[in-house]
Amino acid sequence: MAFVKDFVWKSGMSVEELVSALGSVGFQSVELDKASRIIVKMKESGAKVFLTFTSNMATSGLRGFFAQLAAMRIPDIMVTTVGSIEEDMMRSFGEKFAIGDFRPDDFALYEEGVNRVGNIYVSNRSYENFESKVKPMLEKLYARKKVWPVSEMLTEIGLALNDESSILYQAAKNGIPIFCPAITDGALGFHLFMFQQDHPDFVVDVVKDFANILFATSQDEKKGAICLGGGVSKHYAIFSCLLNGGLDYAVYMTTAHATSGSMSGATTSEAKSWGKIKDDSDVATVIGDVTITFPLAMIKALEELKRKGVLK
Amino acid sequence: MAFVKDFVWKSGMSVEELVSALGSVGFQSVELDKASRIIVKMKESGAKVFLTFTSNMATSGLRGFFAQLAAMRIPDIMVTTVGSIEEDMMRSFGEKFAIGDFRPDDFALYEEGVNRVGNIYVSNRSYENFESKVKPMLEKLYARKKVWPVSEMLTEIGLALNDESSILYQAAKNGIPIFCPAITDGALGFHLFMFQQDHPDFVVDVVKDFANILFATSQDEKKGAICLGGGVSKHYAIFSCLLNGGLDYAVYMTTAHATSGSMSGATTSEAKSWGKIKDDSDVATVIGDVTITFPLAMIKALEELKRKGVLK
Amino acid sequence: MAFVKDFVWKSGMSVEELVSALGSVGFQSVELDKASRIIVKMKESGAKVFLTFTSNMATSGLRGFFAQLAAMRIPDIMVTTVGSIEEDMMRSFGEKFAIGDFRPDDFALYEEGVNRVGNIYVSNRSYENFESKVKPMLEKLYARKKVWPVSEMLTEIGLALNDESSILYQAAKNGIPIFCPAITDGALGFHLFMFQQDHPDFVVDVVKDFANILFATSQDEKKGAICLGGGVSKHYAIFSCLLNGGLDYAVYMTTAHATSGSMSGATTSEAKSWGKIKDDSDVATVIGDVTITFPLAMIKALEELKRKGVLK
Amino acid sequence: MAFVKDFVWKSGMSVEELVSALGSVGFQSVELDKASRIIVKMKESGAKVFLTFTSNMATSGLRGFFAQLAAMRIPDIMVTTVGSIEEDMMRSFGEKFAIGDFRPDDFALYEEGVNRVGNIYVSNRSYENFESKVKPMLEKLYARKKVWPVSEMLTEIGLALNDESSILYQAAKNGIPIFCPAITDGALGFHLFMFQQDHPDFVVDVVKDFANILFATSQDEKKGAICLGGGVSKHYAIFSCLLNGGLDYAVYMTTAHATSGSMSGATTSEAKSWGKIKDDSDVATVIGDVTITFPLAMIKALEELKRKGVLK
Repeated sequence: MAFVKDFVWKSGMSVEELVSALGSVGFQSVELDKASRIIVKMKESGAKVFLTFTSNMATSGLRGFFAQLAAMRIPDIMVTTVGSIEEDMMRSFGEKFAIGDFRPDDFALYEEGVNRVGNIYVSNRSYENFESKVKPMLEKLYARKKVWPVSEMLTEIGLALNDESSILYQAAKNGIPIFCPAITDGALGFHLFMFQQDHPDFVVDVVKDFANILFATSQDEKKGAICLGGGVSKHYAIFSCLLNGGLDYAVYMTTAHATSGSMSGATTSEAKSWGKIKDDSDVATVIGDVTITFPLAMIKALEELKRKGVLK
Repeated sequence: MAFVKDFVWKSGMSVEELVSALGSVGFQSVELDKASRIIVKMKESGAKVFLTFTSNMATSGLRGFFAQLAAMRIPDIMVTTVGSIEEDMMRSFGEKFAIGDFRPDDFALYEEGVNRVGNIYVSNRSYENFESKVKPMLEKLYARKKVWPVSEMLTEIGLALNDESSILYQAAKNGIPIFCPAITDGALGFHLFMFQQDHPDFVVDVVKDFANILFATSQDEKKGAICLGGGVSKHYAIFSCLLNGGLDYAVYMTTAHATSGSMSGATTSEAKSWGKIKDDSDVATVIGDVTITFPLAMIKALEELKRKGVLK
Repeated sequence: MAFVKDFVWKSGMSVEELVSALGSVGFQSVELDKASRIIVKMKESGAKVFLTFTSNMATSGLRGFFAQLAAMRIPDIMVTTVGSIEEDMMRSFGEKFAIGDFRPDDFALYEEGVNRVGNIYVSNRSYENFESKVKPMLEKLYARKKVWPVSEMLTEIGLALNDESSILYQAAKNGIPIFCPAITDGALGFHLFMFQQDHPDFVVDVVKDFANILFATSQDEKKGAICLGGGVSKHYAIFSCLLNGGLDYAVYMTTAHATSGSMSGATTSEAKSWGKIKDDSDVATVIGDVTITFPLAMIKALEELKRKGVLK
Repeated sequence: MAFVKDFVWKSGMSVEELVSALGSVGFQSVELDKASRIIVKMKESGAKVFLTFTSNMATSGLRGFFAQLAAMRIPDIMVTTVGSIEEDMMRSFGEKFAIGDFRPDDFALYEEGVNRVGNIYVSNRSYENFESKVKPMLEKLYARKKVWPVSEMLTEIGLALNDESSILYQAAKNGIPIFCPAITDGALGFHLFMFQQDHPDFVVDVVKDFANILFATSQDEKKGAICLGGGVSKHYAIFSCLLNGGLDYAVYMTTAHATSGSMSGATTSEAKSWGKIKDDSDVATVIGDVTITFPLAMIKALEELKRKGVLK
């Protein structure tokens, strides 16, 4: 039986030491360290690992971390929403997002052409530049074939970005498919629509992409999921695993709570009713802002995986 | 200037009287009454009204209310996720969902073939019956044409359900398109995939459907949104309005908070940075479980709209 | 087994009809109706009923409702923090609290002498008037005796207020003690301190008041608690019941979640580990803003208690 | 203007490096780094620093960290609830608290004599041992004088504990008063009551202690507050500062949100309406579990203060 241990700071403390110590502190700290240990277990077991995240996380500086994780092949499959795709591309095109306030004068921002995502500001100009860069990309894709499953399209876009800091680029380069179940829900959707106006036989095939995510894992393989935030990204990963026999490992990190019955707040316990997870030592739900909790849990896991020679 | 008024119960109190009184109580009560008044404003102004909701809400008894609202043409456009579509159809096929607990033995539920959504239980059998009913529907659609934009497909499915309590049926019957930006993220996605295996030229055209939501409103029209929960349902509605000049009225009801920068927690204030809303009297954000807050705000609005002769 | 039922609006719907219908909707709606039924059970069983609330609720219009409930002797014992005492008194002295915004220019408010509590504004003037009225009250108390247990002092103040809308007055008039475990944590604390400067033998005896809350119930009696929000108000009630054998019924209404281990978020399930509650049908935890959830659950209970002749 | 920077892991990363990098990530990460910088500012400015926390935090392993911070004289004044006092004492008496689950069988725990606080378990035996140790302590205090202001009593208890890991001991040894505005709200309250039964002239003087917290700072001094969680601990610190001209620096860390108007969720912006804070660079509100966020922000501040020679 584990007991609460007094936490004490030592000068120069590493993230790994901190997270280990937090494992004996209590409340969400315990879940955080457990999440870290489950990530290590997933990788050591050779499970196929899903990493899912919502678009605000790619708007944030976690973008670079997701790209780094892809470069190290931590995830085998990624799932996100189209905002992530757009913002990753914008950053590769040289755009900068400002750090602002959670409570500014929003109408003033509007008049300055600034769009707010929490305390991050994205200017209209970034969207305009995006438009000019996306069009020629779609032209090239179309020249090769008319019907594009989403993840295959994203792989091609990723390779074209040629930016080491890009999620899409690193995913493409390392053979990690990115799924995006609501590809039209954003600026990219608008540009796909404009393109289709001129090229009526251009099709984005979401049904074909369902086959792709389904066949990305098999019944026989172990499967794990690290779900950051909720929504369709989380559900698409879990659901495709369910069809293949269920998850063996699951880490959910979110600010949402289970009490409203939403997918964002659905816990790893609820997941047990849908799948095959039996053992509490293989699941963890960490409540908190992912920009804080995910780097903590992941860094400790990376240090351990590196020491064990599991990191590529 | 409005002042706090002591709330006092009167026997036989109606919902309308309660919500009016809550407008002078404080905290979220004030926002609730404001939300109700903005819904009335939207309808009186003749604005095109978007109603968006997440799938757990259609799993709940709000399904009947959404169908009733569609029958009264309160919304002009609906946006949701595919879980809503599936669960609405299952209920029309005669399935029942049980009310259970938030903290059951989830592995025991799994072994009984029961899937949990918060405190609502859906049995595996409901999913199996769903499969047997969906296939012939897809056959009929395919016989008519090969390429289906999502909302057009949902209209046809709705008409086929022929169930007065169904959201899809009432929407179809009353000319209200239902948009679903992530149509493959669920059991329906799996059946679409299975169908496409046998009919390779069957296409669900999500890009074409972007045109449909875009042209569902115009720059000239007033536009309002009632967004229940967050995710892609909320974003798809707001984004399509943004492209048409922005929202004039917005009511957001959610359990999520603005502090994580997620779409689910994004407030109506943040929406001002993205659109054209100027006046605080035209927006409200109500924090709380939608199964409680939405009926309250909507019922008061309905009573008032009825008295004013605006209800159809 | 209960099943989800489609919710449908009927014109003129009463609060009681709404809450009954919500009992078959799902998520927090189910807990809300359950809470209402447990309140009825508590009263019918003849249990001693604790009502606890935090000070922001007395700042809101719930003040009038708490006074009304005291007049009807729904609670046998009340527990709150000193802000509630102060704000109830201010309102009895004729002060008005304005309804404002959650996101104003707070420094501007400061310069105008306005103090903000969420979206309720209390002016400095209200605090100044409070001072002038409290002093003579303390003089009178002191003239009678030097040592005052908190609840006895609050009874005397309540009687002196002579205002039918006052919580303190109705409690005093109806023999309901009000406990306040942190009596000095506010403006009243400051005035007690000022008074003690001039009257060094004046004592507020919090230890004696512990005896009062302990002897307010007995081991043999059934005990129930309705806890609105958390903090010391909630804990003081639960703890005193624990010493007397535990609670038989408990309804918790709060916005806090269990995941941080705080008293505010502690669930009725956690309470089982501390007490004697065995049966899930006798406890409910409703997550949501109390200004909305409490009137709903309480009104349905009142209508039912009235019909059954239990209301005084 | 600051911009979002891609976060990238480096092997062996220190906590200080992580928190610095998080300052450019977005959402709560930005607030976290800001909180850390404000703590440094507070200490460098020579401000009197209040540290407030709720009792669950002293139940957790943060107990050791609070003791360490007291030993380094980071806080000048501490405020907490009586649960903290009790649990700190129990740990000094040799009790161990187990780390358990958030969702156990609570009735089974009750039958085993285990009390749950989130995912921490405290056994009945710990409470029984507490009783046997507290009595002789009260005897000694009473032998010295009959009337005890709370903070003076806690200083004497702290010295008697003689345990380097104890919050009370380190506070007492380093001249840091601990205030506890609801001293009777727990097991200690019960033992004070039992003691008073036998010693009727024994008085715990909470009004006198108001003078102590008031005179712990002056109008002229700079004042800062680090408030972990909410409730009376937070309010008592802020209110006493308000009477002395207001806070110059404030860091709030909590899981509560501003939307319910509670003290736990009250933001540093709301604090501006009550005090004199003008500049946003001197306040931060971090939303998240304090067992994770506080060590992060504090460790970075400690490393910096050490380097600058400010640490004692």
